[in-house]
Amino acid sequence: MREKLFVIKVGGNVIEDESKMDTFLNQFHLLEGKKILIHGGGKLASNIAERLGEKVVMVQGRRVTDDAMIKIVTMVYGGLVNKNITAKLQAIGTNAFGISGADGNLIEASRRPLKDGIDFGNVGDVKTVNTILLLTLVNAGLTPIIAPLTHDGNGRILNTNADTIASEISKSLSLTHDVSLVYAFELKGVMANIDDENSLIKSIEKENFDALVSSGKIHSGMIPKLDNAFASIENGVSDVRICHFESIHKLSSDEFNEYTKVTA
Amino acid sequence: MREKLFVIKVGGNVIEDESKMDTFLNQFHLLEGKKILIHGGGKLASNIAERLGEKVVMVQGRRVTDDAMIKIVTMVYGGLVNKNITAKLQAIGTNAFGISGADGNLIEASRRPLKDGIDFGNVGDVKTVNTILLLTLVNAGLTPIIAPLTHDGNGRILNTNADTIASEISKSLSLTHDVSLVYAFELKGVMANIDDENSLIKSIEKENFDALVSSGKIHSGMIPKLDNAFASIENGVSDVRICHFESIHKLSSDEFNEYTKVTA
Repeated sequence: MREKLFVIKVGGNVIEDESKMDTFLNQFHLLEGKKILIHGGGKLASNIAERLGEKVVMVQGRRVTDDAMIKIVTMVYGGLVNKNITAKLQAIGTNAFGISGADGNLIEASRRPLKDGIDFGNVGDVKTVNTILLLTLVNAGLTPIIAPLTHDGNGRILNTNADTIASEISKSLSLTHDVSLVYAFELKGVMANIDDENSLIKSIEKENFDALVSSGKIHSGMIPKLDNAFASIENGVSDVRICHFESIHKLSSDEFNEYTKVTA
Repeated sequence: MREKLFVIKVGGNVIEDESKMDTFLNQFHLLEGKKILIHGGGKLASNIAERLGEKVVMVQGRRVTDDAMIKIVTMVYGGLVNKNITAKLQAIGTNAFGISGADGNLIEASRRPLKDGIDFGNVGDVKTVNTILLLTLVNAGLTPIIAPLTHDGNGRILNTNADTIASEISKSLSLTHDVSLVYAFELKGVMANIDDENSLIKSIEKENFDALVSSGKIHSGMIPKLDNAFASIENGVSDVRICHFESIHKLSSDEFNEYTKVTA
């Protein structure tokens, strides 16, 4: 039997809110067993960019990362957010180890080609994950904390979607581990009606996904997140869930069911 | 016989000059054997601070690191500089692995107490080095690239002098390795006269150090650097040299002697 391993991605507005982040990190610490955390950057990079007088450009909900912006996300994701998460987890007893996709060639990516005439700049699409390195770290008792940065093998850092990194890492580790991939954010899961907290959709299968999209219940950023979720399930990941950041520590209990489960 | 290991610290104005840094990284790559790189941050943190409208305060040549400034050095040292060095070394074939002192509890420090009434802010004095973690990384074929940041064990990142980190890491690894500690910067070594490039002092012993200081030939930032050098030699480090960043790859050759050697 393969050993259990949690891959948790935290995003949404949790990252930029210190008190929410502290709550999340306490819950993450309480989650038992081997685990890996992938964090986004929230609006922190945009805030720093504005203070530095750099233009923030978003297209289709995704950041256009020009040469000035890749420096900023490298600072904010790889430095500020990653090291503060690591120091806080160390303080509460999780042996956190903050890295990016460049470190030890953890994640090599290729610069995204023009799509529909849009140049996203220094944005990377994942090519390879260094599974052996991840296993070396996890087996040494470390909890990798991964910033959403990759490298192109030619000396350049690339900005890469954290949901996708979580999915790719989950897929690569499912060869040796029973991987649970969890997308944690500020809602209980996928909601049929964002204004009704009792509208949690407890299960999404590929079959009803298209209907949920065409009815408008699932839209914008949730669509690529679910695409990543299905890609994970179809490539060996045992379990994919979307849940509230405050509920992370309950995920190893069978009694807890306040989340959206994504199944094939 | 203990295996050879180089601990290289690069600083001075090399960090903030992309072309010098590229030259240095190529030489570092060519240096054979196990190695660890510790980098400073140069003036990059001050530049970002000024652009963000934060005040840069230096006392006795050392940075006062208030709460705004620790965020900036965490971004610049831990993110921008560390990840760019790592990606560039990866591109030329060194399996670089960028980390800080918080990662895996690599370096725990205590916040520096008031000294002569001066509060240096979030500045750390090294308490412990996690030698086992360093050995795990080095033995896995990785080349650690270490940003001059530590943590206090209570969730805070601290700014820590890179020369001191290089010395502490060298001391800790000398239990298992024959460690050469090298301080690389933009000069050939310690110069008797900064304007005369033929004035290299080829050897400094503890005996003549005091005389060099009182004659004014050694002054300002070179004094703490040499204090670190003597502390290393006295605690098991085999060899300490100060040399030009362009000469790093020659250090394993016995014929090369353009550097300052520090002896007990």
